Amino acid sequence: MRLHLRISLAVIAAALLLTSFSSAAGQNPPRSAQSAAILATLNQQADDWNRGDLAAFAKGYKNSPDILFIGQTIRRGYDQMLAGYHTSYPNREAMGKLTFSNLEVQPLDERFATVTGRFYLERTQAGGGDASGHFLLVVERTDAGWKIVRDDTTADAKPTR
Amino acid sequence: MRLHLRISLAVIAAALLLTSFSSAAGQNPPRSAQSAAILATLNQQADDWNRGDLAAFAKGYKNSPDILFIGQTIRRGYDQMLAGYHTSYPNREAMGKLTFSNLEVQPLDERFATVTGRFYLERTQAGGGDASGHFLLVVERTDAGWKIVRDDTTADAKPTR
Repeated sequence: MRLHLRISLAVIAAALLLTSFSSAAGQNPPRSAQSAAILATLNQQADDWNRGDLAAFAKGYKNSPDILFIGQTIRRGYDQMLAGYHTSYPNREAMGKLTFSNLEVQPLDERFATVTGRFYLERTQAGGGDASGHFLLVVERTDAGWKIVRDDTTADAKPTR
Repeated sequence: MRLHLRISLAVIAAALLLTSFSSAAGQNPPRSAQSAAILATLNQQADDWNRGDLAAFAKGYKNSPDILFIGQTIRRGYDQMLAGYHTSYPNREAMGKLTFSNLEVQPLDERFATVTGRFYLERTQAGGGDASGHFLLVVERTDAGWKIVRDDTTADAKPTR
């Protein structure tokens, strides 16, 4: 019976160890996989933008009242972020063709990472003319995939490619 | 003996529960305390800056090669960040008087948070003239307190207070 108790404890200890290992494995995919998943989110956004689908583009952001979109003013929450995009980009001509470049993912931990990069918007004069700039994003791993929770985008004074 | 086994299991379960509760309590101070600690780091930075102590100011950043300081270019790591400050602010006159405003802390989780705010630099013409802008910081709770790990600071085209 004493042996039985020891075996039970050993089994419990082993089970706990296994749980903790498998949990750690689940929470820490290789960094390259994490980066690839995050970049896929941004590439999907560029594709959605270039199809003129602002609603699909916006799904790259977390649907939460806590997200922040930072420029000269701060837009708070998914709804304000989306409304701001609709105001600034009312039609296909204003949306133009979006290209991201210099994208780099820097992990914070298994749940958060930052992404730096540049954007270039190729547009007709009627659409507002070309625009470019750089950004810092904070992205979060959610049940629905990696989503942007902070976006600080800064336009260049003069567009450069 | 069977009873003994049950008691042992109950004791183990209770110990695990207690450990997890005390650990959660240690990792999740109230949000107001988290915000206060983060704002204290920034206020300390402003004080250090206004004493002309760039080395002390820089201690608000995490001493790590992974930190990022984002502007038109990206400076990587503590050493490059500090060298950049020394280049841009070679003396007291160039440093001027720094004021932060509109500071807001938005937690990500118990280890990371973002801070948004504005800076205003009051300077003589010889020092470079007044400057202002806004920023997004990512801060991390380290053993040495809350430290900045990402800094995206954008200067206004024309300084405004």
